[in-house]
Amino acid sequence: MNASHLSRPPLTIRRISLDTGRENVAVISRRSRALRADVFRGFSRVALRINTKVLLATLMITDDDAMIGPDELGLSEPAFRRFNEPVGSAVSVSPAQPPASLDAVRAKIQGHTLTPAEITAVIDDVAHFRYSDMEIAAFLISAARFTSTDELLALVDAMASVGTRLKWQNPIVVDKHCIGGIPGNRTTMIVVPIVAAQGLMIPKTSSRAITSPAGTADTMEVLARVDLDVEQMKRVVTTCGGCLIWGGHVNLSPADDILISVERPLSLDTPEQMVASIMSKKLAAGSTRLLIDFPVGPSAKIASASEAMRLRKLFEFVGDHFGIAVEVVTTDGRQPIGRGIGPVLEARDVMAVLGNEPNAPADLREKSLRLAAHLLEYDPLLRGGAGYARAKELLDSGAALKKMQQIIDAQGPSVCNSELGSHAADVLAPADGVVNGIDCLRINRLARTAGAPIVKGAGIDLFKKIGDRVDQGEPIYRIYASDRSELDLAIAAAEAESGFSVNHHSPAAVEPVS
Amino acid sequence: MNASHLSRPPLTIRRISLDTGRENVAVISRRSRALRADVFRGFSRVALRINTKVLLATLMITDDDAMIGPDELGLSEPAFRRFNEPVGSAVSVSPAQPPASLDAVRAKIQGHTLTPAEITAVIDDVAHFRYSDMEIAAFLISAARFTSTDELLALVDAMASVGTRLKWQNPIVVDKHCIGGIPGNRTTMIVVPIVAAQGLMIPKTSSRAITSPAGTADTMEVLARVDLDVEQMKRVVTTCGGCLIWGGHVNLSPADDILISVERPLSLDTPEQMVASIMSKKLAAGSTRLLIDFPVGPSAKIASASEAMRLRKLFEFVGDHFGIAVEVVTTDGRQPIGRGIGPVLEARDVMAVLGNEPNAPADLREKSLRLAAHLLEYDPLLRGGAGYARAKELLDSGAALKKMQQIIDAQGPSVCNSELGSHAADVLAPADGVVNGIDCLRINRLARTAGAPIVKGAGIDLFKKIGDRVDQGEPIYRIYASDRSELDLAIAAAEAESGFSVNHHSPAAVEPVS
Repeated sequence: MNASHLSRPPLTIRRISLDTGRENVAVISRRSRALRADVFRGFSRVALRINTKVLLATLMITDDDAMIGPDELGLSEPAFRRFNEPVGSAVSVSPAQPPASLDAVRAKIQGHTLTPAEITAVIDDVAHFRYSDMEIAAFLISAARFTSTDELLALVDAMASVGTRLKWQNPIVVDKHCIGGIPGNRTTMIVVPIVAAQGLMIPKTSSRAITSPAGTADTMEVLARVDLDVEQMKRVVTTCGGCLIWGGHVNLSPADDILISVERPLSLDTPEQMVASIMSKKLAAGSTRLLIDFPVGPSAKIASASEAMRLRKLFEFVGDHFGIAVEVVTTDGRQPIGRGIGPVLEARDVMAVLGNEPNAPADLREKSLRLAAHLLEYDPLLRGGAGYARAKELLDSGAALKKMQQIIDAQGPSVCNSELGSHAADVLAPADGVVNGIDCLRINRLARTAGAPIVKGAGIDLFKKIGDRVDQGEPIYRIYASDRSELDLAIAAAEAESGFSVNHHSPAAVEPVS
Repeated sequence: MNASHLSRPPLTIRRISLDTGRENVAVISRRSRALRADVFRGFSRVALRINTKVLLATLMITDDDAMIGPDELGLSEPAFRRFNEPVGSAVSVSPAQPPASLDAVRAKIQGHTLTPAEITAVIDDVAHFRYSDMEIAAFLISAARFTSTDELLALVDAMASVGTRLKWQNPIVVDKHCIGGIPGNRTTMIVVPIVAAQGLMIPKTSSRAITSPAGTADTMEVLARVDLDVEQMKRVVTTCGGCLIWGGHVNLSPADDILISVERPLSLDTPEQMVASIMSKKLAAGSTRLLIDFPVGPSAKIASASEAMRLRKLFEFVGDHFGIAVEVVTTDGRQPIGRGIGPVLEARDVMAVLGNEPNAPADLREKSLRLAAHLLEYDPLLRGGAGYARAKELLDSGAALKKMQQIIDAQGPSVCNSELGSHAADVLAPADGVVNGIDCLRINRLARTAGAPIVKGAGIDLFKKIGDRVDQGEPIYRIYASDRSELDLAIAAAEAESGFSVNHHSPAAVEPVS
């Protein structure tokens, strides 16, 4: 059947306005002369060819000539972008042979361990969109069952090698990463200016929120442009010694983004996959010193000290292999950090800390100083143990704030609306007592329901934290939204479950403000 | 977020002409008020609701109002059919919670064995289209690694219970199944009339070809209608004692069809999955005696005697548990059976055997008699060892042919074009010698390239079999097609690799006929 695409009549490419995410989708007519009903069915895989260029896609078939005529081939937006051929080009379509590297996946399913060459081939095919969702799932699940340490190293190497690989002149390039899950935990935006003010290089790329109400990139975007490409990023780092940008346009470990998009709906979350994801990005970013923040708490990603230890050793092992000095700090992950949750509110907290404002959240300041202290000690010129004092000095003196302003200026002004949501409601304490628990997952979800991170000014402003006394009817937090219906949704959700427990758990009352 | 679908504005259903196979696909506008960009991306999963009815679907997003406007929700053909609500109905859309049974799949990935209740829940969700392709792949791969015998029994039970479950009055209901892969192997169409002529009940459902050039249903369709529903099937079986229909409208073990549609592109093919697939269908069909044909040969599905033994024991174990007496016969799978490959050519061979024509293929006759002999011995009235003689008697006397004609009349006349392809070409022996091998996979592929099974009259007519002497330039087989370009494709493929080896392997010459 290899020859069959040669003599089938070619079709002409048409662009079809369908966002199909990571999946390449092609549409042909049921009356198409190129359609072979015996091999092409809805959702079968096809190979599209122009000369030597090949795109694998998932096929849909239409009877509607207005959508796609018999001589046309429709490409969904992502497929059109990836194929990168003009509308009207002649394209041939044939049944797709599964990528050859799928043999390795099948071997892995049967319990074999894979060679570095096999893993490299799999990652190369994944990064070039040659795997369907199903095939990606097959790889991830086969690896979730068991991944050897050699396989893990090969995976990190392959993932780091497939996209942009940044190289810096400095022998010391520091980086930080947080395992995530804690609302309001925007320490990166305080740590980077402190560390850069010291003169260490810290070219930080961050992600946008996927399941949380704000990623560092979403919050930084309230203050400056974050969608820089590699050249723009390098210019900022050369000028400022650091940056705070979104990683999306830099293309570090692009296979990671694809793998994550399948891991997430399947809720696959093994230590090996987490380590491969993070370390491939750091390796590609050219980092040589990495501080990892492990928040531990009942509603954090890491629930126990033994889990934290196993994960730490895995990070250290991979770091040692690739010449990245990894340090892990375990932090309090029982409740949100700072007060604001959502991009605008978090940016407010960050600037309050950098500006040494009296009402700045003390926990955010303290945690940021502690993390910065670890990174500062990578400076050979600093005396051992002097990191914390130096971090405090750089913050209190305004040097960190000045550095932040320099970074903001270098990245360019923010283009998004950074006003706080115009609709708000207070959630009230259900009883007199002491706050004895805050469910991070619940607070994240409420802030998202209110519109964050898409609506920058939406979110939650916490008035109380664990250990605080509250009187019945006293506001415990305020929900902000820019849309009345989103506020109503968030209120309804908070009434059902506020996320706060005060002595005994009981429903919270909600009172509209303004 | 549970409440969020309640207050989002509903959309109105529109039907969209897209065949998306087993996957439910929904399309909404990027300007839709129901779209929440934070939770809905291309290819994310959504829940569609009308009152208590829920459909899970994969989402695509359009900017083209002509396709789907901001107040509309487009449903692809399969999703529209499965949701079964009229165009214009008000439907709400919310992020889909993954099916609860996916927790069991995740446990299985981690190496746990599943309880019967967990397996039942998974199969129920799969059969009701609540699993995405990825999620189905996750289940299959987790099970491919290891399936306990208890899990296998639970799987067969769950799969058989989820669709139609046939019950027959007779205590003895016989059935036969072939593991497949051998071109031309249409023994079922000879065995069923012999067995029914004896008075045994044999309500046979068959599949259409998926990767081969003809399934029994495709070939039977040349002679009679095969797309009967359960009631029509029962009437035929009551009248004739047997039937030869396509299983597609009877809905036996529908989860099997869905699982197979994911197993196939991933080339997952474990003994447990094969046994679950076949035994769930037989259990649902109400069979009590089952003969399984294992063709063994280098290009057959089963390549070795030890593999055959392991598979046989698995079938027997499952059969014993469910009260189905399973008998396995190992047959010669080194080459095609009969001469014709493709529906019309195979039907010709079958009718030649039933009609006792002098030129009827002896191997097809002999194999059919042997299989029928095993089944006949299930008749309590027949002496032990008398099965073969009785099968021969029923065939030679014309009783089997008469029964076949009765079955054809009861099922109704064929509605398809049963003419042999009007274009043909002979493939010639490349050298003097003896045929010493025929590659079944290759011959299947050539027949498909010529148009079978979609084109009933397309296929291959073999003139030579293993052991036959050939002279250089003598025709070894003829390719039939109804379309000149399909014939050309098949000729080119046969020239590249004919599938025959004659002494030494060398390319075959091709000579057009007619």
